[in-house]
Amino acid sequence: MTDVSFTEDVPDGLGGTLLVYDRVLDSNDAFPALRRGFTAAYPVEGGEQLKELASFPAHAETILGLVADVARDDITLAAAGGGSVGDFGGFVASVVRRGVRFVNVPTTWLAAIDSAHGGKTALNAGGFKNQIGTFHPAAEVVVVRRLLEGAPHRELESAYGELVKMAMLTGGDLLADLDSSGADTDLVWRLLPRAVAAKQAVVDADPFETTGHRRILNLGHTVGHALEAVAGLPHGIAVGHGLRFAVEWSRRRGHLADAEAQRLRELVRPFPAGEVTIGADELAAAVTRDKKAAGGGKVAFVFLEGAGRPLIEVVTVGEVVEEAVRQGWV
Amino acid sequence: MTDVSFTEDVPDGLGGTLLVYDRVLDSNDAFPALRRGFTAAYPVEGGEQLKELASFPAHAETILGLVADVARDDITLAAAGGGSVGDFGGFVASVVRRGVRFVNVPTTWLAAIDSAHGGKTALNAGGFKNQIGTFHPAAEVVVVRRLLEGAPHRELESAYGELVKMAMLTGGDLLADLDSSGADTDLVWRLLPRAVAAKQAVVDADPFETTGHRRILNLGHTVGHALEAVAGLPHGIAVGHGLRFAVEWSRRRGHLADAEAQRLRELVRPFPAGEVTIGADELAAAVTRDKKAAGGGKVAFVFLEGAGRPLIEVVTVGEVVEEAVRQGWV
Repeated sequence: MTDVSFTEDVPDGLGGTLLVYDRVLDSNDAFPALRRGFTAAYPVEGGEQLKELASFPAHAETILGLVADVARDDITLAAAGGGSVGDFGGFVASVVRRGVRFVNVPTTWLAAIDSAHGGKTALNAGGFKNQIGTFHPAAEVVVVRRLLEGAPHRELESAYGELVKMAMLTGGDLLADLDSSGADTDLVWRLLPRAVAAKQAVVDADPFETTGHRRILNLGHTVGHALEAVAGLPHGIAVGHGLRFAVEWSRRRGHLADAEAQRLRELVRPFPAGEVTIGADELAAAVTRDKKAAGGGKVAFVFLEGAGRPLIEVVTVGEVVEEAVRQGWV
Repeated sequence: MTDVSFTEDVPDGLGGTLLVYDRVLDSNDAFPALRRGFTAAYPVEGGEQLKELASFPAHAETILGLVADVARDDITLAAAGGGSVGDFGGFVASVVRRGVRFVNVPTTWLAAIDSAHGGKTALNAGGFKNQIGTFHPAAEVVVVRRLLEGAPHRELESAYGELVKMAMLTGGDLLADLDSSGADTDLVWRLLPRAVAAKQAVVDADPFETTGHRRILNLGHTVGHALEAVAGLPHGIAVGHGLRFAVEWSRRRGHLADAEAQRLRELVRPFPAGEVTIGADELAAAVTRDKKAAGGGKVAFVFLEGAGRPLIEVVTVGEVVEEAVRQGWV
């Protein structure tokens, strides 16, 4: 089980064998306190290129050298950075000596709310994201506000997309507190523990993505991933637009009553219609290739019957494209 | 749970998405029946170089392309070959799309008795074996006698080393049936299911090598791995010599009564004293670096108090070398 903590400052006792970290943290005031706990450190350039399979052997050989003198069961490998550093570091931890203890210290808002939780690790290959990876839950996820601050506002908006997703999936308190607000630091920090707990509950019910339940986390991601891949939007912002798509399609298919649709529509106001468009062919290709596609030109799409009531239906890629045309995306 | 079967010929219904296989099988009469069940095939050169981390990205990208059109949950990846092909194929299966169904078809005696069972996958890095890997138990292990036949006799002897190890760890029937025999095909085929079941019972009690119990499978391996690395002996033969070392040391430390030691000594006659020697420095370096070392110049050594009664004690690398000198290895 993963132990998740939220603290203002780097907690005492956080440490281990090796800290893999994004070198942008070298200029973060809170970083020296984090670095101090580790025997060795390995700075990397965050970003998708870090996750390239082709460069993995060189990274892994260096890292193996840095932990060579430590018995496997005594190794703790930590990753500090955004989603790419966590995906990379988690993958390394999952395969070095057949798996060592992993600690994730997300330092972007998006990683803090989403990718640091759930045990997924990933590398990119063949021009596609996350084709190689493992499930290797962190022993601890440590979210430190001082490490998060200083991130650009765009990142906070990106995290907001995932926050809205969890509110739509969960309903209740989280949705109510989000209703009339925008993406500001205090709000996101305050709602973070509840959004993370909601995601963790879904993950615990389907840790290895085998029962299908975990697929509800894909809400907003079918079109979101396509926008991310084709239009280069930040992940959470692409997901925010994808959520708007899912709300409108759910209403049109009759899953969602008009009043409820209107309420959910309020939440995606930071991701307005017309801000981004995509070609029909590009959309079709991206949706088909998405790791979450069901095969045979079909995709398991997450609709909403209301807040807290996701509904998965298998649709064709053609239907996704038709709906995008109707909504004026294409 | 892994389903293990032993059949004379390739069973009907064995198949899947992709067969990774050692190209030496192209000349095996039984291979076409195996190949037929798979949509695609990927021939490789068996041997330790297949497991080199540096060449993994190129292999993985090709393999990802071969399964690209299939939904993750529908992919079955099989490996047919010796231990290197199984280690490699299993690792690929464990990381492609975060893990797909794996079937292991061992085609060497050593793989059939040992490496195909237990869920360990592995690549080599930095000049050391098995530094990268995962635990990814096969859904099925299918042992086909017709695929095993034609292997050189030296391979049968190598398998015999692991068979003796399991007999020493288990005692009882397996030991009794082995007592007065040598390494011949009918004997090994007949004892194989029992030796595999005995290993599987140990693995099931400690699937991820976390409780320490699985370490008893390391009997004969401390010195065995060193002989394999330094003297280039085949794995099972190196283990056979390592078993002799463990029996003699167990007796000298008073763990093993003279009569019992004499009985166990009979089993390692195919691995006679004086057949191989090793330098003291080489032995010390290899034992220190072994993945199974306990760190700090210490190693968890598996002694025997009798057949079926392993005993793990932490010893220093220096003590291992001293004992090797006493036994005339160095």
